[in-house]
Amino acid sequence: MPKFAPPSGFDDVLPDQYRRRQEMIRVIRETYESFGFEGMDTPALETLENLVRKGGGENEKLMFRVLKRGAELERARARRGELADLGLRFDLTVPLARFYATHRATLPAVFKRYQIGPVWRAERAQRGRSRQFMQCDLDVLGSASMAVEAEVISAATTALVRLGFADLTVRLNSRPLLTLLVRSFHVPEEHLGAAITTIDKLDKTPPDAVRTELTKKGVPEAAVEEMLALHARPRTDLLTEVEMRAKADGAPLAAQLREVLKLTSLPPAARIVFDPFLARGLDYYTGPVFEIVGAGETFSLGGGGRYDDLVERFAGVRVPACGFAIGFERVYTLMDERGMFTATARAADVLVAVPSAAAAGEALRIAADLRAAGLRVDGYPSAGKLGSQFELAERKGIPFAVVADPEKLRTGTFEVRDLAARQSTAVPRPELATWLRTRLASLLS
Amino acid sequence: MPKFAPPSGFDDVLPDQYRRRQEMIRVIRETYESFGFEGMDTPALETLENLVRKGGGENEKLMFRVLKRGAELERARARRGELADLGLRFDLTVPLARFYATHRATLPAVFKRYQIGPVWRAERAQRGRSRQFMQCDLDVLGSASMAVEAEVISAATTALVRLGFADLTVRLNSRPLLTLLVRSFHVPEEHLGAAITTIDKLDKTPPDAVRTELTKKGVPEAAVEEMLALHARPRTDLLTEVEMRAKADGAPLAAQLREVLKLTSLPPAARIVFDPFLARGLDYYTGPVFEIVGAGETFSLGGGGRYDDLVERFAGVRVPACGFAIGFERVYTLMDERGMFTATARAADVLVAVPSAAAAGEALRIAADLRAAGLRVDGYPSAGKLGSQFELAERKGIPFAVVADPEKLRTGTFEVRDLAARQSTAVPRPELATWLRTRLASLLS
Repeated sequence: MPKFAPPSGFDDVLPDQYRRRQEMIRVIRETYESFGFEGMDTPALETLENLVRKGGGENEKLMFRVLKRGAELERARARRGELADLGLRFDLTVPLARFYATHRATLPAVFKRYQIGPVWRAERAQRGRSRQFMQCDLDVLGSASMAVEAEVISAATTALVRLGFADLTVRLNSRPLLTLLVRSFHVPEEHLGAAITTIDKLDKTPPDAVRTELTKKGVPEAAVEEMLALHARPRTDLLTEVEMRAKADGAPLAAQLREVLKLTSLPPAARIVFDPFLARGLDYYTGPVFEIVGAGETFSLGGGGRYDDLVERFAGVRVPACGFAIGFERVYTLMDERGMFTATARAADVLVAVPSAAAAGEALRIAADLRAAGLRVDGYPSAGKLGSQFELAERKGIPFAVVADPEKLRTGTFEVRDLAARQSTAVPRPELATWLRTRLASLLS
Repeated sequence: MPKFAPPSGFDDVLPDQYRRRQEMIRVIRETYESFGFEGMDTPALETLENLVRKGGGENEKLMFRVLKRGAELERARARRGELADLGLRFDLTVPLARFYATHRATLPAVFKRYQIGPVWRAERAQRGRSRQFMQCDLDVLGSASMAVEAEVISAATTALVRLGFADLTVRLNSRPLLTLLVRSFHVPEEHLGAAITTIDKLDKTPPDAVRTELTKKGVPEAAVEEMLALHARPRTDLLTEVEMRAKADGAPLAAQLREVLKLTSLPPAARIVFDPFLARGLDYYTGPVFEIVGAGETFSLGGGGRYDDLVERFAGVRVPACGFAIGFERVYTLMDERGMFTATARAADVLVAVPSAAAAGEALRIAADLRAAGLRVDGYPSAGKLGSQFELAERKGIPFAVVADPEKLRTGTFEVRDLAARQSTAVPRPELATWLRTRLASLLS
């Protein structure tokens, strides 16, 4: 059996998982499209040259590389040269930058896109970490306006609310303002990066642990205490204080955040707050950064920010950009654990069961009729014990079975089995579709 | 510029293409689900060992192979051993067989599945042949009943009809019956395979060319003439004649086809006919084979058949199976050329244009209101010339623009621009959503 498993670290998607993933993708897609974002896609493979253009990230090391083919592979082997020429994309941001460079002339001046698709990373195989996983990105290229931040945050938050999350908090900060802030505590320049990374953990880690780590990293004790004190303060009016600490350079950055706070319109279930120590790991952010957290959770459901420098490495000209990524696999797991998937629990609405070989034709006719009436109808391919046909239906989450019994049909009725209740009802043929639809509707409520 | 193109032979999916592909996938998925088929997926990568288990097909040679990683790669290089351990799937059938072997215990006894996703083949790069393309498979595993063939054919034909194809013909044959038939013309055993492959081309190639090719391949002249004569005959009652030629072994095979013909229920726009020389290229078919062609077309929109031996190579036990694949990329191209995509031509329903920086807040409020009313609303991120905002909207296929003009708003109306007609109308604010919905509905009709 293990011989036939998917490769180590890769997962199959079983039918019930597939339905849930599709439901999630549908809600996100519809929300993003309702904000005017357009879907696009790039191939799974890019040239190695383009994949490493961003320069030295952790993810590049985890890239799956694809062997050269034919004579080129032979030459590379003989010369002990580079064996691979292509790589599987490890994120959707590098392909976006490459895509934009390729198609810039035909794209709108302000390009609003979303992309949902798998990426691949050769992580050490471990539980809960898959080597192929979905990413779900939302980006605007070509505008430096803070209305972009507001729109990206609104669209992402709305998608999460539509997926069923309530009580969401959007945490907002500015990456360059964070640098000015940490510097204002007299943290030596060489410890700045480490200090930012460590203090960002304050929302997941107890203050004492952060204190120890900061001190170990060489941040002066006084600075540590002052920063922890600032973090412990209520968020109200904190922006003004941070702005003052950051001096002249901080003013335009604080003004940007105020504009984002003013322009962002959120669903009632969500709010946005300034969080002075939020860093978001990636070092390519150049302006506002943000993430969305649920009530009582330590990890975020997604995050993003402004990255005005990245596209330049591909397109040769500076293109302002801002994006957000929903943590697809994490959100999926959470929704699954909490039973938040409801719309797509069943494979079909009804199974047409075939009690005898003579009933096969009749069964197919009934199925076609019910389908024409808009129902999703599963058919059993051959006559057999009704018990095992009912069992199959239950296994697929199908709530009802119609028995295509020619005997019963002579009386003008069908036997319809409610599989959960284990009860049968005789339903007149002309009423069958309506009867089923009414019962199915009551299941949903 | 070419430096940043996708790798040779790979394509980006631009927003308007993406919308069309999604429309196509949605229709196929909804149709397949209405027949009780369940979606599932497998990783893009499989172990090399499993990918070649089917044994020696053309597609295996075109596999993209993925380099081993870390120490394993070093060892392989040092010993000049196998450098790759994984490969990108080149079809969806081998992964299905592997998936079934992995999960058989948890799957229903009769497993009806569909899978829509990319596959990769290192074809020589040429126009119209991409190295990554979509496949779209429908399969039933675990039943030898001919009702399976009927259901697979019905579901696939219905999907094509819902995509807008009319006047479809399902061509049906039996692969073992074809062998018996060709043998009955005294074609020597060693030329049997070549004869079958060649005569299958009769629907795409003039008879004279086929005659020449058959003769060149060593098929006796008398056999060639008799086969061409049979092919030229009307299809009515041909099955009886073929059955007689095939002698005793042919009777059960002909009976199978009669059952498929009897059980298959098709939409009015389609019909099913027996085609005695249809072969379908793949040599893993063991029973009925079929394909769907549009009126006046030489190539098929998709095809399939029964393959009762394949899963055994993975699962160790014989599992009867039957499937169909829509030729996704070919159907897409055809629909695109014929303007058959209609539902998803526009990126959004309306753009909210921002005439001045002071109007930005108002613009976002209008956009949120219209979204709450169910419209898809694009927003322009910054104030600017209305002309270029309208141009952006037109480029994205958006039919209307609402101008968020605070001056106009004081009079209680908005200016709404019909971008195709280049006309503006003053619409009272409370009527805006209804006004737009009415106009949008009239665009569709």
